[in-house]
Amino acid sequence: MVRSLCYWALITFTILMACSDANQSSAGKSQHSNLIFPVGQRVTNGNFTGTTYLYSLIEGDSVNGNSVGNVTFAAGSRSKWHLHPAGQILLAIDGVGYYQEKGKSKIILRKGDAIKCPPNVIHWHGASIDSPFVQIAITGREKGPTQWFEEVTEEDYSSTPIHDRAPL
Amino acid sequence: MVRSLCYWALITFTILMACSDANQSSAGKSQHSNLIFPVGQRVTNGNFTGTTYLYSLIEGDSVNGNSVGNVTFAAGSRSKWHLHPAGQILLAIDGVGYYQEKGKSKIILRKGDAIKCPPNVIHWHGASIDSPFVQIAITGREKGPTQWFEEVTEEDYSSTPIHDRAPL
Repeated sequence: MVRSLCYWALITFTILMACSDANQSSAGKSQHSNLIFPVGQRVTNGNFTGTTYLYSLIEGDSVNGNSVGNVTFAAGSRSKWHLHPAGQILLAIDGVGYYQEKGKSKIILRKGDAIKCPPNVIHWHGASIDSPFVQIAITGREKGPTQWFEEVTEEDYSSTPIHDRAPL
Repeated sequence: MVRSLCYWALITFTILMACSDANQSSAGKSQHSNLIFPVGQRVTNGNFTGTTYLYSLIEGDSVNGNSVGNVTFAAGSRSKWHLHPAGQILLAIDGVGYYQEKGKSKIILRKGDAIKCPPNVIHWHGASIDSPFVQIAITGREKGPTQWFEEVTEEDYSSTPIHDRAPL
């Protein structure tokens, strides 16, 4: 009888371990299921600190000046300070990110957030310290290209953020 | 001994059923994990056939004329024929949808697709017959509001689509 009980205990343990693996596998799939758009190529133009990828979804033209890109920031990565002559709209697709305008507090962006960056306002955006960040960037090109400035210092990058949902 | 074996069999069966429920729950969560933006309110302005929801992420203004909305179509639902004076960009977030310009073949849109609708081109878009469709719609408002026309007939809605990936 003891031997039979041992056999059943071993079988039950094995089943429990198998169930645990299956659950983790399902959870892992859901963690990556927000990879909606291609990640694209690593950005090597020197305008970002850390590791950033860009995939161009729509190119602006003379008829519709908006370009639309899928930007993926590794945790800790961010753009340099920069401005867009026609402004920009950011849609947070996944992860946690930061956005900051010159002279204002840093804002946390989370999946589902949307924020409008006014024309000619110097700002930066990127991933949070702990999490990657995926954003759709909608940028008007009809008033000229993006203008790039200096890197975001560690002090600015790590500054205390506003924790309210980003204002539209 | 037989009684002990029965007890263990019952325990094992119960554990298996619990594991099955947990797996289905995880799969269910991943199926809904592309619900990035709020679904919003049901559209009741008469410009859509079937059930459609809209959530406004960004309102256009005098500084940046782009409005950005999250549009969710139930399977079989679609807009009426319409045009945008400043054009539109659609980003397919989830599901399967259709897009058609007047005089051209219907195009299938799938999660991850992006398409640019030129200014003043009469078109419609919506969900496929079998699947709901979630899209981000980026619409310039600086040249006036959307102009709405007639409903899409069942014949047009069910026309044979082009199966290639939607052109940018």
